Amino acid sequence: MSARVLIVDDILPNVKLLEAKLSTEYYEVLTATSGKEALEKVASDNPDIVLLDVMMPGMDGFEVCSIIKGNPETAHIPVVMVTALTDAQDKVRGLEAGADDFLSKPINDTALMARVRSLVRLKMALDEWRVRENAANQFGAVSESPSVMTEPVEGARVLVIEDKEYEKTKIAETLMRDHNIVMGAESGPKGMELIAKYDFDIVMVSLNLNGEDGLRLCSHLKSNERTRSVPIVMIAEQDDMIYVAHGLEIGAHDYILRPLDKNELLARVRTQIRRKRFQERLRSTYEISLNMALTDSLTGLYNRRYFEVHLDKLLQKNKASRKALAVILLDIDHFKKVNDTYGHNVGDEVLKIFAQRLTGSLRSFDLVARLGGEEFVVVLPDISKERSYIVAERLRRSIADAPFPCNTPEGTLKVTTSLGGAVIEAGGYEIHEILDRADKCLYEAKHGGRNCTVFEGEGKIDPAKYQESARISYEDEEGAAGAASSSP
Amino acid sequence: MSARVLIVDDILPNVKLLEAKLSTEYYEVLTATSGKEALEKVASDNPDIVLLDVMMPGMDGFEVCSIIKGNPETAHIPVVMVTALTDAQDKVRGLEAGADDFLSKPINDTALMARVRSLVRLKMALDEWRVRENAANQFGAVSESPSVMTEPVEGARVLVIEDKEYEKTKIAETLMRDHNIVMGAESGPKGMELIAKYDFDIVMVSLNLNGEDGLRLCSHLKSNERTRSVPIVMIAEQDDMIYVAHGLEIGAHDYILRPLDKNELLARVRTQIRRKRFQERLRSTYEISLNMALTDSLTGLYNRRYFEVHLDKLLQKNKASRKALAVILLDIDHFKKVNDTYGHNVGDEVLKIFAQRLTGSLRSFDLVARLGGEEFVVVLPDISKERSYIVAERLRRSIADAPFPCNTPEGTLKVTTSLGGAVIEAGGYEIHEILDRADKCLYEAKHGGRNCTVFEGEGKIDPAKYQESARISYEDEEGAAGAASSSP
Repeated sequence: MSARVLIVDDILPNVKLLEAKLSTEYYEVLTATSGKEALEKVASDNPDIVLLDVMMPGMDGFEVCSIIKGNPETAHIPVVMVTALTDAQDKVRGLEAGADDFLSKPINDTALMARVRSLVRLKMALDEWRVRENAANQFGAVSESPSVMTEPVEGARVLVIEDKEYEKTKIAETLMRDHNIVMGAESGPKGMELIAKYDFDIVMVSLNLNGEDGLRLCSHLKSNERTRSVPIVMIAEQDDMIYVAHGLEIGAHDYILRPLDKNELLARVRTQIRRKRFQERLRSTYEISLNMALTDSLTGLYNRRYFEVHLDKLLQKNKASRKALAVILLDIDHFKKVNDTYGHNVGDEVLKIFAQRLTGSLRSFDLVARLGGEEFVVVLPDISKERSYIVAERLRRSIADAPFPCNTPEGTLKVTTSLGGAVIEAGGYEIHEILDRADKCLYEAKHGGRNCTVFEGEGKIDPAKYQESARISYEDEEGAAGAASSSP
Repeated sequence: MSARVLIVDDILPNVKLLEAKLSTEYYEVLTATSGKEALEKVASDNPDIVLLDVMMPGMDGFEVCSIIKGNPETAHIPVVMVTALTDAQDKVRGLEAGADDFLSKPINDTALMARVRSLVRLKMALDEWRVRENAANQFGAVSESPSVMTEPVEGARVLVIEDKEYEKTKIAETLMRDHNIVMGAESGPKGMELIAKYDFDIVMVSLNLNGEDGLRLCSHLKSNERTRSVPIVMIAEQDDMIYVAHGLEIGAHDYILRPLDKNELLARVRTQIRRKRFQERLRSTYEISLNMALTDSLTGLYNRRYFEVHLDKLLQKNKASRKALAVILLDIDHFKKVNDTYGHNVGDEVLKIFAQRLTGSLRSFDLVARLGGEEFVVVLPDISKERSYIVAERLRRSIADAPFPCNTPEGTLKVTTSLGGAVIEAGGYEIHEILDRADKCLYEAKHGGRNCTVFEGEGKIDPAKYQESARISYEDEEGAAGAASSSP
């Protein structure tokens, strides 16, 4: 995949050399010869990756990297530090500034290309999600501004596949400093057993396993949908670079060379954990917004939008099966007075408890939704008239029988509800028509003294006649599987 | 990127040969020796790509491909037909069955690997979105089941960058059969000029441009965020395969070899258009659900969720700027009676017109939302007490002054609204507190005869006193930029 690469180095021949190499591979190359110019180009030209010289007069590479990674707008852009330094401490300093990797001068072409390709690929996968997240943010759906650098790096689950016992122990001890949960496996098959049982946030794979090809293991993890997005960090010898490059092509995210430097190890693992958690958060934003679209935030019940889509589906199903379906509208009696007397907070408490009691009195495949204000609806699929009267009465009593625990001077509040129902025998009705029919009954219930149930064709339901009995067990009702579940 | 490849061929040595090649490159390989077995493995093992022999006894490759591509569950899996046939007609038959490409036996390794890598990459980019789309579907947010094969293939905008006039003409004439809009450019720079001006659905690039490197052009398109997702189809000579393979690596989606076969051209372009449109639809699902989460479906106004997030932001801003902010609650008078008398349809009409009139009477940065039922709220940032009384009265009159055109026997309905307002001078209040304060005024307005405005500390607003005049122009109000816009 082609991409836009920003090369930053104060020595022009270095810039030209890298530019030539990357250009031959059809990358678009931008250049900068100082930290200041680099930051300007990062802001204006949207590079997909930055190759950043460490030693520059004025602002050095560490500082430039910190600024790029400290800004939520640019933190997702991969930065590779290019350096003549081989001191582990400098490496760690760069990684802690947020650098994604290090390349040592003179630059090895294989390592360079493999690293650039791999980091660009990771960035592009994130880009799609970032755009959506930004949209969600502007809408106010998400409260905090996201940045990969502010993700927590502790408490991750790490699997280490390594047959050198002392290395495994060293890695485990080091990673436990960050309160990670570390498990070890001494071979690929043992590792796969653990992967089958547990979800890991990161897998470290030795490329020097005895009698095993570590890359085969990486490839297997990358080919399985369940493990595909789990970052892999390879552990390799200094002269394994071609092998490591192949691993990056396959989809491993990073590598660390022996002898393992503890701080470098910690820094690289942190980078992977951060990136994985960032990606997961971007994904969950989507699910949150989807959920928000279809539920009522106060009661957690489905909202009118969901209700209308699903009632429509249930009606179509009923038309096919020729079974009856009941629609019951509920309206809390004198609710306006609750708000006016005790304030909105108490009103909200009442709505929440009301919703809980309804849900608690229904089968899992009955549908309950809040239509708005103090109006709720319940749909009972595959039910007889008589049984729907019983359920409606049960709902009415679940509200009226015990006062609501509320933040009123008395600590409780007596609440009642009026119910209006219609039983649809055969399909072919419009949603509005059915709601109107139930609503007419609700109107009668309201004007018939409230705290009562009126059904179309039946009038006011006699509580004594349709009390629940052992004889008619609603819960034992069969054959209604596959309907919508009552709670989101 | 590693992936799971399904090889289908009835001749075992062919299977073994391909398996060895792909396995060396660390792909996970599955095999099948008949069409039936292939379909079983496609269903059970989630391959990322299928290499499918055409000539098999029983069910041949065309049929297998048609079944894979005809099933919405599997249509996204790329299929490459492997064949000894070189007949253009057979090729087209395969492409029309939905195949993504053809490889001729004996298989050229460069072509094979480049094709597999490229198609796997495209699939994985789509996979993320497919998972979300499925979730949205289950929730009922989206009505139709999506399949890449059912996307329309006509009416796309195509740019052809080709300096051979007769080829350009041939391509344009061919693609216009599908009612595509085709534009031509005889060089890269001319092409880029058109791309800067228009959005294209697909760009065809000749790799044999005089004095130009077509791949450089592809790379440029792939490096720019605006053009990155536009599919590129390369046009190349038969012996350009290594060059073509490089193009696929860079990110071009497909290629066609000269001499151009019109039907093959049409089939390949259709595949790209379909895939692009599918991808766009998956993306738009996200935006639709986001929008659904924050707006009221009936009136199109923002909903309570959006209102609460934004009022909170406005309050914080006000606290900093120390400017006043007005919150006005509106409740349609006797709305229940409208529903009871004329039915829900008329009630819905009233709510829609009510919302339109409110929006029409406000500044673009005022916030208006439907809280539920017949209750609405308006927030006016950066406003004085006196001006907020004027706006409230203007809103009241916008409802009361002209009857609503409605589906009642009379064709219209007289509607009025009561308003309760509070002006917040300095921040530090909770949303609920502010709503309660406005709600108390609304209660007074309701009990003070309705169709009137009550403000905290001011009581009932005198319509004569706070009538709009040329002297106090609300629209000229400055300094409130950056607040939320009144309509989503």
